[in-house]
Amino acid sequence: MRFKFRPVDASFYDLFAEQARHLVRGADLLADMLAEGADRDAVASAMRDAEHAADETTHAIVKRVNSTFVTPFDREDIYALASGLDDVMDEMDEAVDLILLYDVRTLPAEMSEQVEVLQRCAEITADAMPKLQSSLQDMGDFWIELNRLENAGDRTHRKILAGLFDGQTEPLEVIKLKDIADALERAIDTFETVANRVEQIAVKES
Amino acid sequence: MRFKFRPVDASFYDLFAEQARHLVRGADLLADMLAEGADRDAVASAMRDAEHAADETTHAIVKRVNSTFVTPFDREDIYALASGLDDVMDEMDEAVDLILLYDVRTLPAEMSEQVEVLQRCAEITADAMPKLQSSLQDMGDFWIELNRLENAGDRTHRKILAGLFDGQTEPLEVIKLKDIADALERAIDTFETVANRVEQIAVKES
Amino acid sequence: MRFKFRPVDASFYDLFAEQARHLVRGADLLADMLAEGADRDAVASAMRDAEHAADETTHAIVKRVNSTFVTPFDREDIYALASGLDDVMDEMDEAVDLILLYDVRTLPAEMSEQVEVLQRCAEITADAMPKLQSSLQDMGDFWIELNRLENAGDRTHRKILAGLFDGQTEPLEVIKLKDIADALERAIDTFETVANRVEQIAVKES
Repeated sequence: MRFKFRPVDASFYDLFAEQARHLVRGADLLADMLAEGADRDAVASAMRDAEHAADETTHAIVKRVNSTFVTPFDREDIYALASGLDDVMDEMDEAVDLILLYDVRTLPAEMSEQVEVLQRCAEITADAMPKLQSSLQDMGDFWIELNRLENAGDRTHRKILAGLFDGQTEPLEVIKLKDIADALERAIDTFETVANRVEQIAVKES
Repeated sequence: MRFKFRPVDASFYDLFAEQARHLVRGADLLADMLAEGADRDAVASAMRDAEHAADETTHAIVKRVNSTFVTPFDREDIYALASGLDDVMDEMDEAVDLILLYDVRTLPAEMSEQVEVLQRCAEITADAMPKLQSSLQDMGDFWIELNRLENAGDRTHRKILAGLFDGQTEPLEVIKLKDIADALERAIDTFETVANRVEQIAVKES
Repeated sequence: MRFKFRPVDASFYDLFAEQARHLVRGADLLADMLAEGADRDAVASAMRDAEHAADETTHAIVKRVNSTFVTPFDREDIYALASGLDDVMDEMDEAVDLILLYDVRTLPAEMSEQVEVLQRCAEITADAMPKLQSSLQDMGDFWIELNRLENAGDRTHRKILAGLFDGQTEPLEVIKLKDIADALERAIDTFETVANRVEQIAVKES
């Protein structure tokens, strides 16, 4: 983890937006990983870089909390939101790693739906972060939409599981695919945790 | 998630008690799901309703925190307890969903023991919530009993796992049953998290 | 859980150090469990004792928070660190229990590497706890080293998983070994949570 030069006046809001943009990148790489004919080694390597870049941003936030006398929200809330966003990246990274590791050639079609949900979650999170500064009370839509996406992801996850036990799939293959499906579902769940932490900030500041 | 009319003077204590009563209902539905000859589709549908009702109560608490100037405990603690109770419901809902999804006909007998533990956890939580108002210092018994139940659940969980690997059960069946058993254990563990959050409130207020 | 006599002037720092020493003991017992020709029943029984002793220390901290007017850090942070350390012990205990329960005779060689990582994590945590009192700002090395160990553990975990699916291992054996490997990885991850909570205390106190 190297710390790059960073303009001193980047605000917490800028840094949260930067974290969310890393998530957009991560979700896109996950989509690449699932694409027909993907160079999985190359995509996994790009994902590792994206995850390190996200780590840098997380640490920039922690350092900034450390060196700033007056923070826009409670220090703990800044910390909780930053680590929530970081957790999403870790889960997406985990999914990419498992796909590479297990060397599964054919993934269930519904996994692409899950990755689309993740891409959408990442996009609306990136759109929402600047509102932390200007319009905290308008974050309700973000919270509701993330919950809707999480519910959709949950239904798709169950479809994937049902498909794995259709009698056509070998036990060892079931174990691998279930592990990948669970990682995708955890990534979506972690977005909901982020939404809850944003809501908690809004509750406090209201 | 529709928000029903709710008398404006329902206190936080009333709302926590309401959440706990949803848990009693959820645990009872889980027991129904395991019963011989259960109409699993109907029970799972009732569970979904119960889970939505629990969500409504959770949101009523969050809205109440938002609109109340003086809260009986720290806002974060109210939020943490409400989301802990909500998590229990989610885990029980997950167990019901997996039983329906995997269409397992014969469940290990010890799973009924786990559901009895969950029913007991839900009941003592429902009994304990009103004490948040009047006798925080008497919550020690609640905390101790939930820990005892969690330990009992842990032992039963291990018995279930040992049984799955007795050589009589097909690998795919093992994967399904283990998933259900793990969901039951997580539900019990989440009750312990609730107990810890209640303890944390008691520690602060003492 | 019996509460032993404890000198009244044991400080929070002493108690955190005591918790960390329980973790050193737990990690060493885990190493014993993996050793060739181990008496697994005896080691698992010793682990249960160690876990109970760790519980006692955790409760001593909670009681001390309860009865102390001025605490060195925020009460919630003391509580969070204590429960983080307790969680590590629970995960190590879980790994020992699974090894006993599943009665797996041959464990992958890389599992010993994971246990060495856990031993090292426990040792540096035991070294770091006294610094909570005197040199919070020097904890950066602890945080960095725990993160390095967590990354190493992550790589080893992936090697273990890859090995399980080499085609030489029966599905039921894969399920058991993966469960043990996952418990070891969670124990390592929980040390990272401890490091994050220490960092959060340092951030606040700086």
